[in-house]
Amino acid sequence: MTPYEALEQHFRGINDLAHVFAVLYWDEATMMPLGGGPARANAMAALAGILHERKSAPAVGELLEATRSSADELSVWQQANLHQMQRAWISSTALPHDLVTAMQLAATTCEQTWRACRPSEDWATVLPKLESLFQLQREAAERMGEQQGLSPYDALLDAYEEGLRADFIDDTFADLKAFLPGFLEQVLERQAQRPPLPLPGPFPLDQQERLGRALVRTLGFDFEHGRMDVSHHPFCGGVPDDTRITTRYSDDDFLHALMGSLHETGHALYQQGLPAEWREQPVGDALGMAVHESQSLLMEMQVCRGRAFLNYAAGVVREAFGADAGDPVWSAENLHRHYTRVERGYIRVDADEVTYPLHIILRYEIEKQLFAGQLAPRDLPDAWNEGMQKLLGLSTAGNLKDGIMQDVHWFGGLFGYFPSYTLGAITAAQLFATARTEVAGLSDSIEQGDFAPLVGWLRSKVHGQGRLMTADALVRSVTGQPLGTEAFKSHLQARYLTG
Amino acid sequence: MTPYEALEQHFRGINDLAHVFAVLYWDEATMMPLGGGPARANAMAALAGILHERKSAPAVGELLEATRSSADELSVWQQANLHQMQRAWISSTALPHDLVTAMQLAATTCEQTWRACRPSEDWATVLPKLESLFQLQREAAERMGEQQGLSPYDALLDAYEEGLRADFIDDTFADLKAFLPGFLEQVLERQAQRPPLPLPGPFPLDQQERLGRALVRTLGFDFEHGRMDVSHHPFCGGVPDDTRITTRYSDDDFLHALMGSLHETGHALYQQGLPAEWREQPVGDALGMAVHESQSLLMEMQVCRGRAFLNYAAGVVREAFGADAGDPVWSAENLHRHYTRVERGYIRVDADEVTYPLHIILRYEIEKQLFAGQLAPRDLPDAWNEGMQKLLGLSTAGNLKDGIMQDVHWFGGLFGYFPSYTLGAITAAQLFATARTEVAGLSDSIEQGDFAPLVGWLRSKVHGQGRLMTADALVRSVTGQPLGTEAFKSHLQARYLTG
Repeated sequence: MTPYEALEQHFRGINDLAHVFAVLYWDEATMMPLGGGPARANAMAALAGILHERKSAPAVGELLEATRSSADELSVWQQANLHQMQRAWISSTALPHDLVTAMQLAATTCEQTWRACRPSEDWATVLPKLESLFQLQREAAERMGEQQGLSPYDALLDAYEEGLRADFIDDTFADLKAFLPGFLEQVLERQAQRPPLPLPGPFPLDQQERLGRALVRTLGFDFEHGRMDVSHHPFCGGVPDDTRITTRYSDDDFLHALMGSLHETGHALYQQGLPAEWREQPVGDALGMAVHESQSLLMEMQVCRGRAFLNYAAGVVREAFGADAGDPVWSAENLHRHYTRVERGYIRVDADEVTYPLHIILRYEIEKQLFAGQLAPRDLPDAWNEGMQKLLGLSTAGNLKDGIMQDVHWFGGLFGYFPSYTLGAITAAQLFATARTEVAGLSDSIEQGDFAPLVGWLRSKVHGQGRLMTADALVRSVTGQPLGTEAFKSHLQARYLTG
Repeated sequence: MTPYEALEQHFRGINDLAHVFAVLYWDEATMMPLGGGPARANAMAALAGILHERKSAPAVGELLEATRSSADELSVWQQANLHQMQRAWISSTALPHDLVTAMQLAATTCEQTWRACRPSEDWATVLPKLESLFQLQREAAERMGEQQGLSPYDALLDAYEEGLRADFIDDTFADLKAFLPGFLEQVLERQAQRPPLPLPGPFPLDQQERLGRALVRTLGFDFEHGRMDVSHHPFCGGVPDDTRITTRYSDDDFLHALMGSLHETGHALYQQGLPAEWREQPVGDALGMAVHESQSLLMEMQVCRGRAFLNYAAGVVREAFGADAGDPVWSAENLHRHYTRVERGYIRVDADEVTYPLHIILRYEIEKQLFAGQLAPRDLPDAWNEGMQKLLGLSTAGNLKDGIMQDVHWFGGLFGYFPSYTLGAITAAQLFATARTEVAGLSDSIEQGDFAPLVGWLRSKVHGQGRLMTADALVRSVTGQPLGTEAFKSHLQARYLTG
């Protein structure tokens, strides 16, 4: 066995453990009864510790060293795989074992506490858990940054997407901050003249579920290799051969749950479309969180909220709820008005694509201050309120549920993740603009509920590429341009001011 | 840290991994989409390998050695804990790492193949998987036997219950084989005069599920620390703080699913009642599979198929299906006739308690021959048919689905497990006979749907004892007698010939 082959074998074992972890995580979020929480937190911490042990095993360092002289003989994919192995080795050896298990334990515990505390806005109970978790996360970020010559926050960003830096985000977000407020005013004024007609509920959950499954399948989700369930906070988890999306239903509104399912399907299609021949190796993984979000947002924002898809979906929706085809309330036009409704609101996950980046900018600016030591967890409710007033003109004072306590991310230890959503949105716009020029009859096929041409293009251009190149290189290679905000702004203008 | 304390810490980590394994196993059986099978089999094999590594780590041997001199200073529970650690060490060091992972991979793969092949009776496809699995299992049994001075089959029995030997089972089963055929004839003759009235279906699944959940809760299942779902083959899994029972529904019969749920609840109550202060240590585990089965069968056979419980349950059943209290079809008497109906049948899990031991004796005799080299997996369909004709007068020639392919056990690598069911049945009878003398007003409380007195007694006498003593010692201590068939035979006579 060559050193490279020995590395592949070692990383196959790591992939097996990552599979195990993905199942545990999904189960914790969707299935686990409340009382199982503490024991589960311990079990997940133990597992995280073993994963870390395997990733940082001295043998890996030796094998990586031994491959250096013969790297030229490897194929392009093997070289990219080796590069990902090196990345895993560097970031894992930056962290001591006890920090990794403590961080996992703190994250699971804090997330469980958040779930219990959010309904009653019990900030006092969750704050100490968040403080412990943040302290461990900061220590980890500092150590990772030191090892790689990066600031702690850049080290976190880099872990979610190789090469991503705060400088780039600063520029991108400054551009959006300059564009969005004025644009938002224009859109609000225009939309005031044509409000959507209210949809008459209630919408029985079993009908919603059947509808969701039907459209998720239309997009191309493979139920032989995946499931769809209910969870507290919708997500896409599992592994490529067993991809699991979740949603949450409410019987007085079906629009959110449905679009949430289609969003997660975008993630799932990416995961199910990762290169089959590299499934067990690091190079076969998804590229990074911004590209992952680009795949969900391409489906949700570029396609499923657009007229072509809604012309198709309106019929499926009417059939699901037994509605009359002639009723304007159930028309594609009215669904489109609902799905492109722009409003200043408190909740990120309910936000339209125009105000969404403002929610992200809020979180990004707070995160940077947290890791620069300018804010502490206890300052978060006030900082949140201040930022929301500045960016969206809304106060969250005394409204923690719809303020700082609305998102799971920080309480689950995901710092540095939020920018991915907006980077994903601009990536989605740029990729989709290219798809429109390259895929013949794209709009027509979508209007007929045929996603094969679009998914085929994504499979070849994005999904099937795994981690062969960086996100930056992929975007340049597919679209011919570095990532920027132009396509996103053009999309917004076309949909909201002229569409 | 003393050597004993270091061992406790090490075994806490093993317990965490066992927790992980339990979740993976449950998920595989209840949630996993078909296409996830091969990757999952690899992941579970990797996990089994790590568990084995931890159990057989040289440090464990050294620490066990180091505790020898100071074992006297330990409490009774600590000493029993140490004894269980030694047992785990001995059985795990008997097996090389590669054999453990190969066995796990073969077991998951063979079980998945069995699931796919059973409906079409595709024996040819599953046989090679079973052959590979059996070969690995036999090698493991031989190695474990060698290490402990036991025959291979005794080594398997010992793994499911410390101290259990084929000699004891031979005597016990000989006794039942002498008693049952004549007894069965008497019962069949008596029951021919009073057949049950057919229950009019269909029984909607959601009503069945609500009914099942209500009665499972009545028995004492803690839904804060557990779940109830659907699977291909009903089982009880998970961990004490998160205990998971499964069932399977059919809309033309609710009796089987309901009693199956109550059976699994007996397992679950045992698991949820294990000693809380020893939850993370080997001594806090369930005692062995015969005692585990005794807990499910005590609930199912001794209690829930009895008149007192059915007098209570009939009202709940009628309410669930909106049935009329005056209708004799829905009376407690008619439910009792259904639930005590004796019939020679093909399927073990559908068998009544009179014919059930004959199904077990069939499997036991075949297993012994397999491990003595007198039968090979390819001989199983014929051996099965022959045994069924001899024991129950039924032919399974050309009927593999209801013959050799009916049970998951061998296809999942569980050899030496079957005797537990009948040992569990006689243990249940003996324990319940004692409970009737010790728990004041037991029958009355059950008739009122109050399980607290019975479960309280079981908690103190059985569940809360963990692995403090062997099953043999526990039965002697609780009932004042070694395990025997007398209570079981008395129970059958009372219920089927005079009741």
